[in-house]
Amino acid sequence: MAFAEVSNDIIGQFAAIVGESNIVIDPAQRYNYSHDETEDYSFLPDVVLKPGTPEEISQIMKLCHEHVIPVTPRGGGTGLSGGALPVQKGVVVSMERFNRILGIDELNLQATVEPGVITEVFQNAVKAKGLFYPPDPASRGTCFIGGNVSENSGGPKAVKYGVTRDYVLNLQVVLPTGEIIWTGANVLKNSTGYNLTQLMCGSEGTLGIITKIVFKLRGLPQKDVLLLIPFATNEEACKGIAEIFRAGVTPSGMEFFEREGAMLTIDYCEKIYAAKVTTPFSENMNAYLLCELDGNDDEVLMRDAERVMGVVENFQVGEILFADTAAQKEELWKIRKNLSPAVNAYTLTRAEDVVVPRANLPKLIVGIKAIGQEYGFNSVCYGHLGDGNLHINVLKESINEEDWNTKVVDGIGEIFKLTVSLGGTLSGEHGIGIAKRPYMHLAMQEANLEVMRGIKRVFDPRGILNPGKIF
Amino acid sequence: MAFAEVSNDIIGQFAAIVGESNIVIDPAQRYNYSHDETEDYSFLPDVVLKPGTPEEISQIMKLCHEHVIPVTPRGGGTGLSGGALPVQKGVVVSMERFNRILGIDELNLQATVEPGVITEVFQNAVKAKGLFYPPDPASRGTCFIGGNVSENSGGPKAVKYGVTRDYVLNLQVVLPTGEIIWTGANVLKNSTGYNLTQLMCGSEGTLGIITKIVFKLRGLPQKDVLLLIPFATNEEACKGIAEIFRAGVTPSGMEFFEREGAMLTIDYCEKIYAAKVTTPFSENMNAYLLCELDGNDDEVLMRDAERVMGVVENFQVGEILFADTAAQKEELWKIRKNLSPAVNAYTLTRAEDVVVPRANLPKLIVGIKAIGQEYGFNSVCYGHLGDGNLHINVLKESINEEDWNTKVVDGIGEIFKLTVSLGGTLSGEHGIGIAKRPYMHLAMQEANLEVMRGIKRVFDPRGILNPGKIF
Repeated sequence: MAFAEVSNDIIGQFAAIVGESNIVIDPAQRYNYSHDETEDYSFLPDVVLKPGTPEEISQIMKLCHEHVIPVTPRGGGTGLSGGALPVQKGVVVSMERFNRILGIDELNLQATVEPGVITEVFQNAVKAKGLFYPPDPASRGTCFIGGNVSENSGGPKAVKYGVTRDYVLNLQVVLPTGEIIWTGANVLKNSTGYNLTQLMCGSEGTLGIITKIVFKLRGLPQKDVLLLIPFATNEEACKGIAEIFRAGVTPSGMEFFEREGAMLTIDYCEKIYAAKVTTPFSENMNAYLLCELDGNDDEVLMRDAERVMGVVENFQVGEILFADTAAQKEELWKIRKNLSPAVNAYTLTRAEDVVVPRANLPKLIVGIKAIGQEYGFNSVCYGHLGDGNLHINVLKESINEEDWNTKVVDGIGEIFKLTVSLGGTLSGEHGIGIAKRPYMHLAMQEANLEVMRGIKRVFDPRGILNPGKIF
Repeated sequence: MAFAEVSNDIIGQFAAIVGESNIVIDPAQRYNYSHDETEDYSFLPDVVLKPGTPEEISQIMKLCHEHVIPVTPRGGGTGLSGGALPVQKGVVVSMERFNRILGIDELNLQATVEPGVITEVFQNAVKAKGLFYPPDPASRGTCFIGGNVSENSGGPKAVKYGVTRDYVLNLQVVLPTGEIIWTGANVLKNSTGYNLTQLMCGSEGTLGIITKIVFKLRGLPQKDVLLLIPFATNEEACKGIAEIFRAGVTPSGMEFFEREGAMLTIDYCEKIYAAKVTTPFSENMNAYLLCELDGNDDEVLMRDAERVMGVVENFQVGEILFADTAAQKEELWKIRKNLSPAVNAYTLTRAEDVVVPRANLPKLIVGIKAIGQEYGFNSVCYGHLGDGNLHINVLKESINEEDWNTKVVDGIGEIFKLTVSLGGTLSGEHGIGIAKRPYMHLAMQEANLEVMRGIKRVFDPRGILNPGKIF
């Protein structure tokens, strides 16, 4: 179905719905809504709306459904697959005014929030009550929690505590046709009809606009220890991870990064925080594991830490750093969290987010480097290796535009083919959006895509909500 | 669309697909496939097929799709909502030959199994490798693991470890049109397109026939302690549960039963096991909590047990039984697991499976008893109260047929209305099937049902797979 233009008459109707102060028409201001953190993509929307209630969104959707106008919902704009970009122009619905924590229910260990709450704000509000919301994307200081639900974000603690969708009990959603529904109930177990809640999680804003989220919470672990383990090679580090889990330890974080990434990040951190990084990074150790253990009992933690150290001793490791001050822990996490901005400050990148069964990581990482050599690109790898989830930053550096858009694209295709051949898939936590859309046929059969397109049509018969994403 | 008869010609084609020895036509044998554990329902299928491969199921589905013949997949026949009953006659596809554990991958903590494996067989195979598959329905000795996925079964350990769907990574499914797909990948995190895996879990065999399941596994906890805590009233027990969780303890089991249920079960157990039950049940204590704690550290377990005892001391409790021998633990779990068969041996029941936010349990249980008084029925309540999941066995006893089919049905409707008013929903782990289908409108809006029906049509355009279930 061909999309309609956003006419002046329609803009008047939008203004009547959201109020004049919540509509953005000025091109310079609109430009802020044209890009996210994905490569150098930019798509200018015709108009940006900032509704304040589910009812306003319902009216917007009804109007756009009637006139066949594309609508792209947007959170904090920190996405890494272009999911919030208005590739077909039309309307961007910014969720920035949905920024209230509506309640934290300590008796039932649940919280109800609006999707425009910044993830870190929510984490801290929960923590203040002695409770714990584990999902922790690196962008937590600026991303919106609704975006986390839409992309099914993870972060370092997923290895022990699961990803965003594991905490979503119920969602209020405005459907593309304007109905407002709750997808489930505020309960821990539910076998009542199809699981619309889980279908919404990770659907990248293509099935409905989330307007309220009910999360389950946990008790806050009181203690943690953090180890930095240097390995001679990536392969050794990956093998070490599999063995740690086999030993029966479940770390609350199992992060990996390459020396090259660490060096870039140290320079970057020293600049932006104006403070010297004191953690030593030995020259002949190329791969680092950041291993966090958490719990409530010092003795149990120390015993687990000893088990981890006992396991990794069988590999080519350097001196293990046991971070025993808050400052040292903070510095280590600062390095990990700034890897992506640091690499992106160094050069334009394509950021991949593949995931494989944990034991296949050694083959994956060796294969990625070989593909890079063959197709002429360098890469910096890091990620949540406890989950088998590797982020690959393919570096543009001095590669010319033509090679960047052809040869490098083909090389990335080879990485995805390798990933799938190792039992893995395209995205562990960033989503498909527009960036990985061309590769979807590598990850699944046509019959799967046909089912997904069918589900999309059920929710959105005119295809107006976040068009051009996923498939 | 009107369903076709199963003609002799079609039966010949079925026989050619599955082989003469895997087709059941004899009425006496077919009768075994006409009922499950739900009330006194019975629906005779026209024919029962026992395929052995996904490809055979694909051929069956294509044939039935072409001729518009209803197909009802069937696992162990232990369902409590009638999900496996061929209410429109036609074909029952019994999964009994899909009974192989295809692999337990100790390195990745994953297992691949066929859906006809008995749950307990799978639990034990995993345990033999020092691993743990936590979902544990009371019917584990006879139910099929594929049925557990289809109904999203829970069991006592769900309170700490989650339900069946939390362990499902990937599914091989034959769609109603005959295509064979994998719904996802064998990975711990996945943001690659819509979550078809989670959509299949709990869809009660209406969207496809599951032919392989990839589960994630955990390390096996080495130790556990078990407490039996008697409370003066149901309400006190329910309040006690909420306070235990507030104290930061997460038990690995938090089961509840009424004294009346325990008495019926003791008689029943003494008969079927021919052994005296030694656990004392005081006459003036009406409600019992079975609280299990597990882990790997004796001291931590004892500390948690002391915290539980400290919390419940603030309520009207009797003497707490600390089960310190394997025999005593086994006896307590035997009582818990035999509650349902014992009550059903006593009288015909209607078994409900409601779930509410945990803190609303006291209001729920008081309300249920009041509704029973008003509508003239007794009930025995028990269940997984740590999850807010209460099983209500409505007893027929001497109620006449007319009242049983009108007044009692109305009363159950009132229980569901109360449940929903307390933020809960119809089923926590048994599914909707045919038994709770008339009440679906109480749990969700028409817009939700419309979306679910739309999804059903995407998978099954002719409505041949497990017709008449859920909505």
